[in-house]
Formats: sequence, C-alpha cells, structure tokens
Amino acid sequence: MNNFIFQNPTRLIFGRGMISELPKQIPADCRLMITFGGGSVKKNGVYDQITKALEGRDYVEFWGIEPNPRIETLRKAIELGKKEGVNFLLAVGGGSVVDGTKLISAGLLYDGDPWELVLSGRNTNTVPLGAVLTLPATGSEMNSGAVISREETKEKFAFYSNYPRFSILDPTVTYSLPPFQIACGIADTFVHVMEQYMTTPGQSRIMDRWSEGILQTLIDIAPRIQENKEDYDLMCDFMLSATMGLNGFVALGVTQDWATHMIGHELTAIHGLTHGATLAIVHPGLMRTMIEQKEAKLAQYGQRVWGINEGSTRQRALKAIDRTEEFFRSLGLATRLEEANIPDETIYEIERRFNHRNVKFGEMQNITGTVAREILINCK
Amino acid sequence: MNNFIFQNPTRLIFGRGMISELPKQIPADCRLMITFGGGSVKKNGVYDQITKALEGRDYVEFWGIEPNPRIETLRKAIELGKKEGVNFLLAVGGGSVVDGTKLISAGLLYDGDPWELVLSGRNTNTVPLGAVLTLPATGSEMNSGAVISREETKEKFAFYSNYPRFSILDPTVTYSLPPFQIACGIADTFVHVMEQYMTTPGQSRIMDRWSEGILQTLIDIAPRIQENKEDYDLMCDFMLSATMGLNGFVALGVTQDWATHMIGHELTAIHGLTHGATLAIVHPGLMRTMIEQKEAKLAQYGQRVWGINEGSTRQRALKAIDRTEEFFRSLGLATRLEEANIPDETIYEIERRFNHRNVKFGEMQNITGTVAREILINCK
Repeated sequence: MNNFIFQNPTRLIFGRGMISELPKQIPADCRLMITFGGGSVKKNGVYDQITKALEGRDYVEFWGIEPNPRIETLRKAIELGKKEGVNFLLAVGGGSVVDGTKLISAGLLYDGDPWELVLSGRNTNTVPLGAVLTLPATGSEMNSGAVISREETKEKFAFYSNYPRFSILDPTVTYSLPPFQIACGIADTFVHVMEQYMTTPGQSRIMDRWSEGILQTLIDIAPRIQENKEDYDLMCDFMLSATMGLNGFVALGVTQDWATHMIGHELTAIHGLTHGATLAIVHPGLMRTMIEQKEAKLAQYGQRVWGINEGSTRQRALKAIDRTEEFFRSLGLATRLEEANIPDETIYEIERRFNHRNVKFGEMQNITGTVAREILINCK
Repeated sequence: MNNFIFQNPTRLIFGRGMISELPKQIPADCRLMITFGGGSVKKNGVYDQITKALEGRDYVEFWGIEPNPRIETLRKAIELGKKEGVNFLLAVGGGSVVDGTKLISAGLLYDGDPWELVLSGRNTNTVPLGAVLTLPATGSEMNSGAVISREETKEKFAFYSNYPRFSILDPTVTYSLPPFQIACGIADTFVHVMEQYMTTPGQSRIMDRWSEGILQTLIDIAPRIQENKEDYDLMCDFMLSATMGLNGFVALGVTQDWATHMIGHELTAIHGLTHGATLAIVHPGLMRTMIEQKEAKLAQYGQRVWGINEGSTRQRALKAIDRTEEFFRSLGLATRLEEANIPDETIYEIERRFNHRNVKFGEMQNITGTVAREILINCK
C-alpha cells in the first residue's frame, strides 16, 4: 500500500426531509448566493423546500449553470457574487451545479479571469459552500474536484478547490429524474470506482473489497431501479454509492487510473455528450486495449463481481469486460462510438489534442495520444 | 435506510515513516503534552522517532496510561496538564492511550472531577488532540469515542468527546507487537464490524458489502499475519481495517447492536480481561442466544463471508456462528468462559449489574440482565 494523507471534512446530511436542516448549516449573518441549473428544481419541489427552509433569510439566486458547466456562465455568476458581496454559496442541483459552484467559490476571491484558475488546476482560497444534491453521479458533493468546460475552445479540464462544508442528500428528490439521467449516474459511479480499482492487483485487500462492494451494489440495484425508481431504499443505495464512489474512501493507499475519464471528457468537449454516456463507450474499449496490463485485476474483478470462475486468466478477463459492456447496455446506454454518432475524425482529433498537450494518462502514465487512438478504435 | 448526519474530520496520515509528519500537525506555539502507555514505545523505536521529529520543541510527557485506562490515572494526567497550561495533546500508543487522552482533553477544560464527564457520557468542550497509533484495534484514532474504567468500583463506561485532529498510522510500528495483542486487535476489529452489521437485514446494500469486505479482509490476513507479522502490506490491511471498522464509514444509515461490547466491558471491569479477548468469548454466545432475531442476517453473512450455501436458513445461520467461533479460536483466543477462568458467579453479577442499572442493550433494546445471563450461559 502507498503512503497517504486523507481527510474529508464534508458533513453528509442524508435522508428524507433533510433539506429542512438547511438553516442550521448556513450562518445567519452570511451573504448567501444560491446557484441553480436549468429549472428542474422548480418542478420537483426542491426549490419550494429550500425557500421554505430559508424563509426570512436574504439571498441572491443565480440560475442557469448548465450540464458540463461553462466558464462563460460561471464568469457571470462570479461577477454577480462580487457585486453582491457574497461570502457563502449553496449549490442546488446535480454534479454540474456543484462543480460550477466550486469554481465560483474560488473565483469570488480571485482578481483575474477565473479560467486562469481552471488552467492552474488548483486553488483552495475559497468562500465556503454547501450543496443540496438532486442527481447522484459525480460525487462532487463530497470531494474537492470539479470539471469545467470552455465552450469557445471546446475544452474541458479538472479543477480542485474546496470540499463542500455540507451536502444534503434526500433520495426522494431523485424520483423525478429521467431514466437516461439515472442510467448515466449509475455508469458514472461504476466507472469512478473502476478508475480507482482497475489498477495493479494486490495493493490493498480492504480497498479492493470496498470497490467491489460498490460495483456489486450498482449491479444489484440497476435493474430494480429500472422497474421502480420511486423505491426509497433503492435510491438510498444509489445515492450513497455515488457519493462513496468518489469521496476518497476507496482510494486510500492505492494507485488510480482515470484515463477513461480523460478520453471521455474529450468526447463531451467535442460533441456535448453526457459525461456518464461517454464513460460507457470508452471504458470497455480501454480495458480491451490495456488487457496485457490489467489482465490479473480484470480476472479478480470477474471472479468477485461477476462470478466468472471458468477459463484461463485471459479468458476470464475478457469475459469480465464483456459483462461490463453488457451491464452498460442493460442501462440503455450506447457502448460504441457509432451508436452515439461519433465520427472517425473525432478519434484523430483526440489523438492530436493529447499529442499536442503531450499528456500521458492512466495508472502507468502510458496512455498517450497514440494509445488513446487505439482505445477509441476499440470503441467502434 | 435511516436518516443520518455524518462527519469525520480526522486527518489520517498513513504509511511507513509518516511519524516525521508530526511537526507539521502540531502548532509551534501550543503547549503540548504527550501521553504514553507503559513504555513499549521506548523499545520499538517509536519514542525515538517522536523525539527526533519534535526536536527543538518544548513539551510535557505523561507516562503510564494503562490498558483499559483508569480514571485514577487520568486524574493525575489532567492535574499535570492543568498545572503546565497544556492546550494540545498527543497520544502515543494503542486505543487505551488514545481513549484516555480523549478524557484528558475534556478534563483539562472541566473544573469538577473528570469521572463526572464519564458519567455524563459526552463532552465536546476539549483541547485538540492528535495520535500516533501503535496497536490497531479500537478505531479510537478516527472516532470520538473512548471507554474509561474506574478501578475502585470495577466500572467501565463509554464516553464521547472529540475526534483526533490527526492520527499517524505507520504499520511498521506493529511488527514488535506480541501475537496475543495482534489476535485481540483482529477480534476487536471483527466484532466492531459485526456490531454494525449483524442487525436487521436489508437496511443498506452498500453498508452490508463494506462490512462484509472488512470481515473478508480480516479472515484473509489473520493466518498470514500469524506466519509473518513483519509483512508490510498485511499489516497495512490490518491497520486500515481496524480504523475503517469503527470510524463511522460502515454505519451510515443502519442500526447498530453493541450488546457484545456491553457484556464484554463487564468481563474486563470484573476480571481485567483484554477487551478483544472478551469479545471472542461473548460474541458467539450472543449470536446463538439471539438466533431468532438474527437468523436471516446470519445466513447472509454465512453465504457472503464464509461461502456457506447449503442447508436451511437456520442451519446456515448456526454454521456461520460456528465458523466465527472457529475463527476466533484460530487466532489463539479462548471462546468460552471457563477457558478464561470466569466463574459462574460473574454471570450472575453481570445480570445483577444490568438489572440494577435497568439497561436494555442491543439493536432491539431487548438485552436485559436476564438475557445477558442467558447469553453468558451460552458462552460456557
């Protein structure tokens, strides 16, 4: 196991009706801005619960943080926040709203163009923020990461700032989510775990078991949620799995990969594909391309998560990849580039971008532009 | 799943050589007291590492916090700390030293007799504390609990105060532990998880998987550690499992039991038995007595953790209990009262104590003095 330093200070407030805890979590004397996405919270009752909980408080609202939040939008939020003297933020929405609000929290204390913050990769000089999560997927509600896009250049980069001071997760607010969003959230959570698990075997028995435990949970609940997405306990397990999948709890002392995400981000940047949908396409192809490197861990995964006990290590590894792709398909997601209407030119554009930035992704830092092309060809 | 609010602010600093991180974790201008147990840290090199890391700093040392830390000893530490104006504590040792130091951290800011704090059960007005852990077992390094004994009345009670601000876990410091201490640490961790897991089934799929994951890890590593307790990766998994077993990560939204602990504490209070050793005796007998209530979850545990797939639910549940008892025996621990020379009178004394305090323990709050007697008779 590798040495590590771990601390996750987020207060997780979980369960039915817990939005009513809001007033206790936000200092009465702060200057609050609440950030929202496109307006679904006005339909599903979340907005009403929040305004009721904060009755008598004064706050600014900022609407319109889009999926894959754009710097162009966030600049406007930062401008408004500065004008209003905002010193506390509440993000209400899915991972994109939380991600975007993390950049706002740093941008409020930064004099330059906030895109510079994104390019710097990290800034922890921030105003405090809390979140009310409406879509389980990204884990942003309990980590310090964010992914910010720039529309004019079709770029999308990771940015690290502060952990939410608190996050409120009420599983009942997910009942109204469209099935496609739920499918993407499950795929996103699944691949988050795989990025932290599908690496060199034998690093940590307990981290392996915990990652496998989240994967088993997702496989167990996915078909049941398709039958009834208003089953409270199912949505509890979905929501908690998504948070636990990317809050550092399964990453202690082990190496990580994240190459699937790096390639997926490019598909989103170029074609606007939903994040989880890109992962369902890239991940099986990545595992097939990297089979030499990942064979032993894939066989362990196949045995423990999918019950694959027959055949050589290679056969079991390949079968485990097939089962993973079938799982994504069972969610109703495309797993091939052509199904998502991604042309071959995109493959070469991503190769060009990776080569231009001279990046090397993945656990072994061996996923160059050339390897990314090979992976994407395996996703056809 | 039940509603919950979870926050664990402890910074976990894990790995070989990490004691050198100490100076960064302790403010230079604080008045520091370092608390120790009986002196094993002078033999295993930990004391030298700490004095080297804190070279040039001024601090007070308090020695002699015993296993099952006694209020009689802690009063002296509090007196010394008050005299010296101490405002930061560093606990160096196993769970007992960390537990005792939690009471000191509250006692330093309390004017009355610190036993009143123990009887009150909770006090969060404390000076900050950090820990360097030398014995994986109690999880005290990453939770807010402590268990304090009173020698003169042979009492032992739980007390809740603050989370350590940081805890340093270097698995190499465990190499010199006696095999009995390691066995008790494994049993303690195992039963901590069972207290949070062996409850009503179907509360949370992910919490079940994570608890099962720790149990599987312990079963995997225990015989290997007996062969070589200087295998770094094995001791990493042991140390991390012990911390994860009682830091709240497997308790999110699920009910808990803790009756095994409540009965075990009495065996320690009356006979001075090591905590982990009491659990190995009480836990199988408790499960046999509570078989009606716990049958379904025991069968799940048997299937997932021990691979027991044959027989009726009852047969699988009983087999799972047998396997658990065999596991404790494989650690070299006694699992029956007479093996530990506990006389029948103790059974009736514990019944009397529970009835006198009018307590009802366990998930269903149905473990009265009478039931505790039945359990202990099943431990004969």
